[in-house]
Amino acid sequence: MTPPASFYLSFWLSLLLGLLCLLFVICWSCVWRGGLGWDGSYLEFNWHPVLMVSGLVVLYGIAAVVYRVPSTWRQKKSTWKLVHGGLMLLALLLSALGLCAVFDFHRAASIPDMYSLHSWVGLSTVLLFAFQWLLGLAGFLLPCSPPWFRSRLKPVHILLGNVVLILSLTSCISGINEKLIFTLDGSTNESYSSLPLEAKFANFLGILIVAFGMVVLRILSKEEWRRPETEESAHVSSLLTQPVFFSFSR
Amino acid sequence: MTPPASFYLSFWLSLLLGLLCLLFVICWSCVWRGGLGWDGSYLEFNWHPVLMVSGLVVLYGIAAVVYRVPSTWRQKKSTWKLVHGGLMLLALLLSALGLCAVFDFHRAASIPDMYSLHSWVGLSTVLLFAFQWLLGLAGFLLPCSPPWFRSRLKPVHILLGNVVLILSLTSCISGINEKLIFTLDGSTNESYSSLPLEAKFANFLGILIVAFGMVVLRILSKEEWRRPETEESAHVSSLLTQPVFFSFSR
Repeated sequence: MTPPASFYLSFWLSLLLGLLCLLFVICWSCVWRGGLGWDGSYLEFNWHPVLMVSGLVVLYGIAAVVYRVPSTWRQKKSTWKLVHGGLMLLALLLSALGLCAVFDFHRAASIPDMYSLHSWVGLSTVLLFAFQWLLGLAGFLLPCSPPWFRSRLKPVHILLGNVVLILSLTSCISGINEKLIFTLDGSTNESYSSLPLEAKFANFLGILIVAFGMVVLRILSKEEWRRPETEESAHVSSLLTQPVFFSFSR
Repeated sequence: MTPPASFYLSFWLSLLLGLLCLLFVICWSCVWRGGLGWDGSYLEFNWHPVLMVSGLVVLYGIAAVVYRVPSTWRQKKSTWKLVHGGLMLLALLLSALGLCAVFDFHRAASIPDMYSLHSWVGLSTVLLFAFQWLLGLAGFLLPCSPPWFRSRLKPVHILLGNVVLILSLTSCISGINEKLIFTLDGSTNESYSSLPLEAKFANFLGILIVAFGMVVLRILSKEEWRRPETEESAHVSSLLTQPVFFSFSR
């Protein structure tokens, strides 16, 4: 399989899994948890999983891999830096809104904040993501950033990017598990241990999130799928001697 | 900083964090949860976190990085393959014993198995680990393994190794979170949300586990810290032109 074909197979798989994650988390909130609202009730809490999965996992993952799509290597690097940074900013804003939803719900219901391990790992993830975004802005988007700083920052940026994604997956899995315990064991007749349809569905959402994360981390780990350092190297890359759809048909 | 010095800094940090993880999980089980036993009671359950953290996280992580220690590159590769594979087998056996502990406890207490997302991700992790170990045995330790199979298997082995570690971290964090909810909210006067000392301690254990995993993944991600393909390349490696303690003193 040629590199572009194997890249695009992984890329489309990540898009498919990301879409399924979104559908599943929205469906869970709307079918079993009563829908979405912003009134301090459980409906407001429901925004928390929807926004964290959308922002911190799916959009974050897509924003990370979109920078590596080989068909963009011919185009201006600065454009794709802006796309990458812009999508990451949107992911960060969705995540921050997801935190607001849970803090607002806690305040209205007089539930203490920040006591569970899920909340400790989750908040650390969002703070690290914000730090990473600011560092990326300073190093790669501001024109006054010196070249030595960019070259030093690049491996750190790649490493921290992976760390944030791994922490996002950990936060989501522990969060879904926690929510199912609180909801099913706390207020209805169907306990989590009887594995009702909602539990199976939300557990499967967790598996989809893990699968999405693994595909994205796989893409990010392949050295040969990294965007070349310079525009020139992109032009001479043998990967791009044929249009992408040819690669698929080989 | 020369590569060996930066490697050894990360390596010793991983050992320190791994040791702290072990101390914390044993302390949690013995100080707050009544200690360890194998009688179907909660004391038997307590082996579950101890064995999973010991086997699936700490020993697994150490077994992964020990293969990369530069001072071993001069020595026979086959010896270090055996050390790597042997430690991994021990890690797998501890993990399997950790699963036995929780299944046995569930059976005695008539608690259903395999309903939570934590259990789904956790069992998948151990099964994937077992598959990875068998694949490693077939590809790298059996002398009859053909060279083409080894070279094809190597990137898959590295990728799956990272995936197992990431899933281990996810399983441990969701498991500690779940245990604290069940224990503190279910049977004592100190709820999880009041953040008693046990909750703070076990949450901090979770943070230590994440930190250990990140340091190990950092070591595994560095291309230049990979053991060279051949014995000869190890000898010409510039990393090894000076003894390790010299690198530290620069």
